[in-house]
Amino acid sequence: MNFYEKTISSQQIFTGRIINVKVDTVKLPDGSTSTREIVNHAGAVAILPVDEDGWVWLVQQYRKPLERVLLEIPAGTLEPGEKPLDCAVRELHEETGLSAESWEPILSYYSAPGFCDEQLHLYLARDLKVGESHTDRDEFVELVKMSLEDAYKAIFTGEIVDGKSIIAIQYAYHQMER
Amino acid sequence: MNFYEKTISSQQIFTGRIINVKVDTVKLPDGSTSTREIVNHAGAVAILPVDEDGWVWLVQQYRKPLERVLLEIPAGTLEPGEKPLDCAVRELHEETGLSAESWEPILSYYSAPGFCDEQLHLYLARDLKVGESHTDRDEFVELVKMSLEDAYKAIFTGEIVDGKSIIAIQYAYHQMER
Repeated sequence: MNFYEKTISSQQIFTGRIINVKVDTVKLPDGSTSTREIVNHAGAVAILPVDEDGWVWLVQQYRKPLERVLLEIPAGTLEPGEKPLDCAVRELHEETGLSAESWEPILSYYSAPGFCDEQLHLYLARDLKVGESHTDRDEFVELVKMSLEDAYKAIFTGEIVDGKSIIAIQYAYHQMER
Repeated sequence: MNFYEKTISSQQIFTGRIINVKVDTVKLPDGSTSTREIVNHAGAVAILPVDEDGWVWLVQQYRKPLERVLLEIPAGTLEPGEKPLDCAVRELHEETGLSAESWEPILSYYSAPGFCDEQLHLYLARDLKVGESHTDRDEFVELVKMSLEDAYKAIFTGEIVDGKSIIAIQYAYHQMER
């Protein structure tokens, strides 16, 4: 089947710091037209830091879209031209003060491909060294250490409800060489 | 730590069919102000259908934000007032023609909590019966059957790059009672 949706016209709705929004009018495979609402995002990285005792380091952070605090793995948005691994090293250090000797890519994925182009690059960080954190001016996070097993259980109790964290923790719990 | 970000003002940017967009000006825990760009979404469901032979049923669909075809588990957006399980039963049937006798909730999560409130409810559907699909007017999908093991491998080869599909396939591969 030919699925291609040709863009007939594109209307830029919003240009922000984190996201841009546009509405494309498209020609569908059957020749009819429809509109697609699209959020453009620069992409992001997320890191699951696991120390030599098997503890994972998570961050608590207020998420304004949900009006609640979430427990997540450290993460951050790619800067223009920045390579994902460089961003991961930078963000882990900024948010947690940790640096890691060993970096293993887990996988890259799209968080919400129906309406958004955000791609996330996930890493496992090991051989950790503790330093001092330096978060962005408008970012307030608190570190939480828990066992990998407790983090895995927290996926199913609803204590961890963030997509990138769920993927990385499932991977580490089942696939990480210990 | 008190993380709360009080809304000082809120500006509605866009009201669409699938998403709304607003920019909130917030007061941060240290008393300074910042802005938060927020995408509001009604929420969605996604279903991993596994038949008695251990095959999973996936859909191929053009994703305009990425300008490419993705291989995903069947999914759809909640209608106003609709319960997630009712939506899952409806969407599975519309997209694949399948009906399922057994429905197991996997978990619910947020796809991109940094800028979007979309919550996804994931289900495992078993004891399948094949019928006829009835997709929406502007939706073109093609069914793909593969073994659960091949689907799991496809997460790591980059053949499956959709977040909801990755979470559900990780769960089924490691946790499903067989």
